[in-house]
Amino acid sequence: MDQIKDGWFSELSELWPGQSMSLQVEEVLFNEKSKYQNVLVFKSKTYGNVLVLDGVIQCTERDEFSYQEMIAHLPLCCHPSPRRVLVIGGGDGGVAREVLKHKQVEKVDMCEIDEMVIEASKKYLPKMACSFENPRLSLHIQDGFDFMSKHEGTYDVIITDSSDPIGPASSLFEKKYYELMKKALKPGGIVCSQGECAWLHLDLIRNMQEFCRTLFPTVSYAYTTIPTYPSGQIGFILCSLSPDLKFEKPVRELTSSQIEDFQLRYYNPHIHRAAFCLPEFARKVIVDGVSANGDAK
Amino acid sequence: MDQIKDGWFSELSELWPGQSMSLQVEEVLFNEKSKYQNVLVFKSKTYGNVLVLDGVIQCTERDEFSYQEMIAHLPLCCHPSPRRVLVIGGGDGGVAREVLKHKQVEKVDMCEIDEMVIEASKKYLPKMACSFENPRLSLHIQDGFDFMSKHEGTYDVIITDSSDPIGPASSLFEKKYYELMKKALKPGGIVCSQGECAWLHLDLIRNMQEFCRTLFPTVSYAYTTIPTYPSGQIGFILCSLSPDLKFEKPVRELTSSQIEDFQLRYYNPHIHRAAFCLPEFARKVIVDGVSANGDAK
Repeated sequence: MDQIKDGWFSELSELWPGQSMSLQVEEVLFNEKSKYQNVLVFKSKTYGNVLVLDGVIQCTERDEFSYQEMIAHLPLCCHPSPRRVLVIGGGDGGVAREVLKHKQVEKVDMCEIDEMVIEASKKYLPKMACSFENPRLSLHIQDGFDFMSKHEGTYDVIITDSSDPIGPASSLFEKKYYELMKKALKPGGIVCSQGECAWLHLDLIRNMQEFCRTLFPTVSYAYTTIPTYPSGQIGFILCSLSPDLKFEKPVRELTSSQIEDFQLRYYNPHIHRAAFCLPEFARKVIVDGVSANGDAK
Repeated sequence: MDQIKDGWFSELSELWPGQSMSLQVEEVLFNEKSKYQNVLVFKSKTYGNVLVLDGVIQCTERDEFSYQEMIAHLPLCCHPSPRRVLVIGGGDGGVAREVLKHKQVEKVDMCEIDEMVIEASKKYLPKMACSFENPRLSLHIQDGFDFMSKHEGTYDVIITDSSDPIGPASSLFEKKYYELMKKALKPGGIVCSQGECAWLHLDLIRNMQEFCRTLFPTVSYAYTTIPTYPSGQIGFILCSLSPDLKFEKPVRELTSSQIEDFQLRYYNPHIHRAAFCLPEFARKVIVDGVSANGDAK
């Protein structure tokens, strides 16, 4: 199957062999090669505008809220006073949009390596890219490693909104990246990263949990459902410098009126707690540390 | 897109316009028209054998455990003493397999209208169809409406494992079907039915919840993640004749050793509770009764 054929976009990758999600295309809006990757935006028939990097769906206007809300509010509601936040990646602007809903946040640094993603999002994903107009956001077109190495002890929360571990984002799934994030945190700081899908990449998740536990006293894994990510869900790796923190119990529980003010469509305190309850096949591997093929560690 | 083209099966339906899940095909094993529907079984590259009815994936060997475990153990663990169980549909045998793991269950009646589904499953889905050998299972090749009208006050739990509300299963989503189930229950009885996907069919779910609340004192909605169902998840409508029952709190909580004995891969007591925590967009409609486009009821 080609990427767009007979009016359908099909998502094929060696990361999920033998399966493919397809969306019906109404119009290709943008299709260019940046320094780092192919950037495609198309208008779909039923999912609004869709951003695709190197053939992989990053977000659709119809279901993006699930991912953006969860990757932002899970860590932010677990921090007692999140004033400085760093977003690595997230060039569509959606994660920053959610972070900025928290009034305590004084400044968000966003570090995206590929300016073309930001430009395409400003033009074709205005409901996500709205955050770029916010005076509390500082945008840095830069490599995340370089940026963080110059900002030690600076952040309360660091969110990594990356693509998959093939291509420009592959280094963001490695231990040395987590070491850098740890140094860039203030005491009690939290990191939350795109953590792939338990149905597809359980061994990768287990390995990441293992090296995270050597760096942070508190490590956990949560997930959200989202139709246009492979196998319909995506996870988050959460780490904290605070040994007493329980990620499944938000220290700042959003009230009904905050949920309304924030215009939340996915996140609420119930789904926060539920997001950490793993199906048995994933719980065994991620929590108990059994290997994905059933062997004990 | 045709159903199988260039070695890929694609799932297209008016129930989920503009999107399609595709699986790579290694070999078509069975493809015949029964009295009721087209029955296809193929060997996929990465999901094992796959059963397809009228172009819609019913189960794959790789992820079927999620659906079968949840639709069976959610209601059974909420009943203090489930001795008589009726399964409507479920011709692959997977739901009966899970029900029969409960030692309290003395007899399972299974009522499937299409014998060809059972025969194809016995041959090509042996890990699901194993339940047909169990002496506690009685198989009835019959219409569910006819069967139930002759079995008033008989069952502790009725599970409806149906296909979608187009084709032979459409009547199983209507109020008169729920009236029949209510009559077929013993006092304190529970029904659990395939309840479609909140990402796709929120209005249908809301309507079903509404008519269920006119029949049963306790009604709830839960869901599970499953890669090969449309949008990656599927829900369950649960109703009980007992006004005091709380579906999110199982009255019989499976122990770790029962989870091991049952060889469970998805269900555990944590995921039981979490399955009832809905994302905000679905909670508003299903629990608060706001219409899917945002209008108050």
